[in-house]
Amino acid sequence: MTIDSNPLSDLISAGMPDGVIRVETHPRTANTALVVDKVRSVYPHQQIYGEFCPVQGYVDAPPDELYEWLADSRSLEEWTYSTRGLVATEEPGLWVGYDRLNTDTEIYVRTVANPAAMTVDYHCAWDQGRHLWMIYLMRVVDAQLVLNKPGSVVLWNNCRHPFYDENPYPEAAPPERAEWVGDLWDMFWAGHQIELENLTAIAEHRHGHGLPLTPEWMRA
Amino acid sequence: MTIDSNPLSDLISAGMPDGVIRVETHPRTANTALVVDKVRSVYPHQQIYGEFCPVQGYVDAPPDELYEWLADSRSLEEWTYSTRGLVATEEPGLWVGYDRLNTDTEIYVRTVANPAAMTVDYHCAWDQGRHLWMIYLMRVVDAQLVLNKPGSVVLWNNCRHPFYDENPYPEAAPPERAEWVGDLWDMFWAGHQIELENLTAIAEHRHGHGLPLTPEWMRA
Repeated sequence: MTIDSNPLSDLISAGMPDGVIRVETHPRTANTALVVDKVRSVYPHQQIYGEFCPVQGYVDAPPDELYEWLADSRSLEEWTYSTRGLVATEEPGLWVGYDRLNTDTEIYVRTVANPAAMTVDYHCAWDQGRHLWMIYLMRVVDAQLVLNKPGSVVLWNNCRHPFYDENPYPEAAPPERAEWVGDLWDMFWAGHQIELENLTAIAEHRHGHGLPLTPEWMRA
Repeated sequence: MTIDSNPLSDLISAGMPDGVIRVETHPRTANTALVVDKVRSVYPHQQIYGEFCPVQGYVDAPPDELYEWLADSRSLEEWTYSTRGLVATEEPGLWVGYDRLNTDTEIYVRTVANPAAMTVDYHCAWDQGRHLWMIYLMRVVDAQLVLNKPGSVVLWNNCRHPFYDENPYPEAAPPERAEWVGDLWDMFWAGHQIELENLTAIAEHRHGHGLPLTPEWMRA
């Protein structure tokens, strides 16, 4: 059965929303004017990294193996700058370790991964493990599909959760710690870019030396 | 069984890769210097949108319903600027319509979606449906998790496939067409931003008026 397309036909009675730019109402010259008005030689920091923090890149290593490594919470101990010493808690899937940006800052991690979509979400928080609100949304993509070559693309995004602006659980923090993770938001893209480069260097080094991307100790 | 973490222990004999920045080798002051060196008041266009094209935003509509709408290829006829008239081909899941940026430009679409991860990948190509290399990688995320409020976040990325730089199937193009889709790469982020705003406006309008996000004709 073929159904005729009838885009937005349900809005005839409800009225069209404002600000919708489609070829029927905005011929190409009108749309091009809007596009050209947005494109710049440079973009301000807040426009690019104010509310979201996207980083991404190519990794010369097989996507299925790369996904498998990243899907293990303990891979964070390898490619992040400062997440270390993860041990399993009594709650299945929940790990606790230290974010060595500061002394005595605990970090809790639960990794939610989907092998078919190759999404890897690190649900984290400083200080407490009941509300994991710092979430790194990552995804491994087969580079053959999107770049026409072997290897992987890693997409990574982070959303500016309101708790970055104010610690909701100050009673859980070490009393002497002056810093809050969200104080660093404006440096996140740079920090994450460095970590993505770590991830890339480690994965490519292992792949290039014929080593498994997921090391033995992580498989045990 | 608890296994001691042993990050990068497999690289003791293979040697460490160059360029890995970790707290063990780079104390915080050293890392901060690297981070500050990357952060800018403005970033050049090519750094941000040269090889990848990330756009993302908040949508005030339920994530499960938003995912369901986007997972139908025909939603492209609603929120994109110019993809129209999709009809099913004889190949299951493959649709063909027109990209009305140009007259007579066919566009083929196969949507690969994962309901658990809420990924929606539009595998597309102009002119021919055998090699779908233009891939929009999208994902719906529950805003309650990442922004602490009801609604959705939509992540969208696009990778600069080499075919954007040269049409690999020129014989499939209408003979009179001078333009190639990749000629527009540097305007993609702005065009996609406009389309993400369309998507947002339509979804929020439907949700706000109590209409289903996926319209009746698309369910038939």
